[in-house]
Amino acid sequence: MYRTNTCGELRISDAGKEVTLSGWVQRSRKMGGMTFLDLRDRYGITQLVFNEADDAALCGEANKLGREYCIQVKGTVSERQSKNSKIPTGDIEIIAKELKVLSPSLTPPFTIEDNTDGGDDLRMKYRYLDLRREAVRKNLELRHRMTILIRNFLDAQQFIEVETPVLIGSTPEGARDFVVPSRMNPGQFYALPQSPQTLKQLLMVAGFDRYFQIAKCFRDEDLRADRQPEFTQIDCEMSFVDQDDVINLFEEMARHLFREIRGVELPRLEQMTWHEAMKRFGSDKPDLRFGMEFVELMDDLKGTGTFSVFNEADYIGGIVVPGCADYSRKQLNELTDFVKRPQVGAQGLVFIKYNADGTAKSSIDKFYTPGQLQKVKETTGAKDGDLVLILSGDNANKTRVQLCSLRLEMGNRLGLRDRNVFRCLWIVDFPLFEWSDEEQRLMATHHPFTMPNPDDIPLLDEHPEQVRAKAYDFVCNGIEVGGGSLRIHDTQLQEKMFEVLGFTPERAEAQFGFLMNAFKYGAPPHAGLAFGLDRFVSILAGLDSIRDCIAFPKNNSGRDVMLEAPSSIDQKQLDELEIKLDLKN
Amino acid sequence: MYRTNTCGELRISDAGKEVTLSGWVQRSRKMGGMTFLDLRDRYGITQLVFNEADDAALCGEANKLGREYCIQVKGTVSERQSKNSKIPTGDIEIIAKELKVLSPSLTPPFTIEDNTDGGDDLRMKYRYLDLRREAVRKNLELRHRMTILIRNFLDAQQFIEVETPVLIGSTPEGARDFVVPSRMNPGQFYALPQSPQTLKQLLMVAGFDRYFQIAKCFRDEDLRADRQPEFTQIDCEMSFVDQDDVINLFEEMARHLFREIRGVELPRLEQMTWHEAMKRFGSDKPDLRFGMEFVELMDDLKGTGTFSVFNEADYIGGIVVPGCADYSRKQLNELTDFVKRPQVGAQGLVFIKYNADGTAKSSIDKFYTPGQLQKVKETTGAKDGDLVLILSGDNANKTRVQLCSLRLEMGNRLGLRDRNVFRCLWIVDFPLFEWSDEEQRLMATHHPFTMPNPDDIPLLDEHPEQVRAKAYDFVCNGIEVGGGSLRIHDTQLQEKMFEVLGFTPERAEAQFGFLMNAFKYGAPPHAGLAFGLDRFVSILAGLDSIRDCIAFPKNNSGRDVMLEAPSSIDQKQLDELEIKLDLKN
Repeated sequence: MYRTNTCGELRISDAGKEVTLSGWVQRSRKMGGMTFLDLRDRYGITQLVFNEADDAALCGEANKLGREYCIQVKGTVSERQSKNSKIPTGDIEIIAKELKVLSPSLTPPFTIEDNTDGGDDLRMKYRYLDLRREAVRKNLELRHRMTILIRNFLDAQQFIEVETPVLIGSTPEGARDFVVPSRMNPGQFYALPQSPQTLKQLLMVAGFDRYFQIAKCFRDEDLRADRQPEFTQIDCEMSFVDQDDVINLFEEMARHLFREIRGVELPRLEQMTWHEAMKRFGSDKPDLRFGMEFVELMDDLKGTGTFSVFNEADYIGGIVVPGCADYSRKQLNELTDFVKRPQVGAQGLVFIKYNADGTAKSSIDKFYTPGQLQKVKETTGAKDGDLVLILSGDNANKTRVQLCSLRLEMGNRLGLRDRNVFRCLWIVDFPLFEWSDEEQRLMATHHPFTMPNPDDIPLLDEHPEQVRAKAYDFVCNGIEVGGGSLRIHDTQLQEKMFEVLGFTPERAEAQFGFLMNAFKYGAPPHAGLAFGLDRFVSILAGLDSIRDCIAFPKNNSGRDVMLEAPSSIDQKQLDELEIKLDLKN
Repeated sequence: MYRTNTCGELRISDAGKEVTLSGWVQRSRKMGGMTFLDLRDRYGITQLVFNEADDAALCGEANKLGREYCIQVKGTVSERQSKNSKIPTGDIEIIAKELKVLSPSLTPPFTIEDNTDGGDDLRMKYRYLDLRREAVRKNLELRHRMTILIRNFLDAQQFIEVETPVLIGSTPEGARDFVVPSRMNPGQFYALPQSPQTLKQLLMVAGFDRYFQIAKCFRDEDLRADRQPEFTQIDCEMSFVDQDDVINLFEEMARHLFREIRGVELPRLEQMTWHEAMKRFGSDKPDLRFGMEFVELMDDLKGTGTFSVFNEADYIGGIVVPGCADYSRKQLNELTDFVKRPQVGAQGLVFIKYNADGTAKSSIDKFYTPGQLQKVKETTGAKDGDLVLILSGDNANKTRVQLCSLRLEMGNRLGLRDRNVFRCLWIVDFPLFEWSDEEQRLMATHHPFTMPNPDDIPLLDEHPEQVRAKAYDFVCNGIEVGGGSLRIHDTQLQEKMFEVLGFTPERAEAQFGFLMNAFKYGAPPHAGLAFGLDRFVSILAGLDSIRDCIAFPKNNSGRDVMLEAPSSIDQKQLDELEIKLDLKN
């Protein structure tokens, strides 16, 4: 038997017991003929004591142990002289009697502490050591706990988890698929699912009524900071429901998770239309942890002064930054540089300081009268001591998106984006389509199976850009955590959607014929939603990146540097698959 | 609102209520001015009544509904005149007042009944209709219930579910990998995991202590009846445990599942060595639902008579088939044909009938004296009226495997393999290696990470074929449901294993360097096990095939005939991946 107890469970009430523990050497120190050793496992840390006076040989062995040696120790639980109130086992120690090295360790390439000295690359290469750090491990424990809570919640709501296949067909609409050559069907390929979207809709046609799956999804896209080629969705679908049914049920699930994981009670969530969110926050995922809502200033500033930039603008909007009228020239220059970065893309930044003494000082003093600036103060509701930051441009929504970046930057600077505060809401009434500059055509904002708002169906032919979708996103702290929609369940309407999206009937049939055919056999009205599990975990864990809640993430080149994957494969494998390399370089 | 109730929940106590139901038309019949319609959803069937006298127009609409129309009905719950005790809603019916067609249906290509008229191919092409059949849907409901039970059981035992990546590196040892070309790393490929074996071992090195995952696994093998290219494992690993710890814990899990799902109380399970299982049943997965254990007859029949086949044999073994001494010539010929089939591969079959009158009649009467046949009766324990079937051959284990096929065939013929009876056991002490005729070398019986029995380690160099593994399989009703082993956690021993398996150190390093490197940092003793979820579900559901407990299975060519996957992909996709087709035909 390797252990009678874990390193996290012995207490003062166990004093006197003979125990066996196994674990890793966290650290050791010598003090007055004694060696103290912290033994660590997943459950905690227990102090071991080796007394030179009692057993010099044993103590000598203990002194030879290096960090991260895996050892087994037998001894007696004893009350500590100097207790450590920071850990649950801090009242006791083990007076060691026997010691066995189960497995020695080389010196780890970085320290196994919450604040490690290992850089990202080293940590990923030795991920099995990185995962020994409590700071990382607890994220994966939280992830496990969340999935248990989610499954039991949905099970109680009569949802059935159904595994859908990972080897499916390729659908060029949407992101790029990962593909898998089929050896048994040479020249043909499976694709890995970007989501189980069509399969879950088929389960609704099959009468499953309430489906969910915590499902791996795959997208072969160029990776940005917070993207992984494989990620996990909490994927759900329901029949015979309307938008409010879905929203209510999954809001309740979110409430359950916030309560159980963080002890936070979410209020009934606001539903904000996409248009309102864009107008007030310049984003379809507004961060509501702080104010600084947009104030439109067209009436105050366009055509009222001699500033040609404003006079030619189609949108002028500002935010009130409270208490920052004392910003220095240097700070304002930093903000100007910030908005001019290519990622933001604004031409320049206008500021108005409303000083404590009631005067105003701005970058547009020469174009506007003090009275006009006072008018802006009234419109924006700025107070003495506040700073107003203004952007303008010839495309209202583009400018709003720039102003959103500035607002979030100010939130960061003022420490208003507290990771322990959670502000969630629903965004509704998305536009059904959005224009793609790249493809020069309308694309589905969500996906081609989204139900148009019935009131807007007459607009499909003439004004598709005005059609609202029966779609909803769950947003928390400025992050889109989930999203879904009512689905089309009618063959004709689905065909119409493909037509507006520029599909020929042949292409629609080739790609989605199986779904449109299924709709001909009594398809029920249905709707669904998917949460990004990685994002949901990272929010509840207070993490910046989803990477820290994934056991073995890939880097920005899609590589697993620990496994050294991807890698070249044998010619025999290529031959069997009847493919060959066609390298450009 | 689409419904106030499901089709499975209304009872006599609801009589008088106004309700709204939604579902599918299962069947309808007209009787004396009334139309009766069975409305079906996942939860049950409720009878609707349309009375021509009350509302002729509504009744006319109801008469127009075809099978599988998806409809919504409002009406009043009413006590039935002729109750149907077979269904929970059989005491009531709904007097319909309003009817709305939510979605019409074409005539389904097969009937949506437990016993459908659809063949396999048609059912798979229209799987979304096939899944409407209760007989199929209940298997997936059972699968869901099992995974909930498993997860909560393991969670209570401190196991953490960790998602390991699906895009990993290719390892040519073992079955054939599915591979995924990497666009960002041209010429390189990911592989889909055959199991998370090495990753779960790394999680043990990482100190996770108890890991599990219900994980999709992939093998690109030619498909046999009960194989799927993608399948699901309940994958588990534990640190600081010995074989008995693992066996006890997972036996308890199995006991929990049999109890909760089938109401069956499993006894403490027998542990049978591989050698004993081969000797008594000719199989490492013996079906213990019936007897007919092997009796070795070398002493009785080799060299004692003039039958050259037996005199030259290295193994002669028989089974006693109770009460079958009256088998006809035709029946015995069928059995001879059965054992001579290429799948079984025996040369011939010898029988001895021990007649009710005490005489014996055999196919070897001319080679042996009646006394010698009487001796066989004593050795086998056959009684008057029993039939003894005997096989012989020059390779003991090969002959035993043939005799195993015959034993199972007799079990089938005599109805002894009852799907509602469960006989489970553990098989232990597997040989660590097995000889591969194809590869002309020793292969790992399980995988190269399996711990040799410490007593046998001295045999590794000279007699590797005699080395026993610390491995164990969970067998139920002749099916291997799970298996696992203690793992090597020592770099040197792991290197030795690769050496015996004929790996060069370079190849071992290239393929498994990451694991052997990890073992250098205080790897804990660890062990694990994986159950085949598909098989486990199919046993508990009483199914012949795993296909019926998979939502969207593939056929024997690895095709999903509903999705028409795999399929050809665009030239653009191939170009981006920098591969091209290299078709042989």
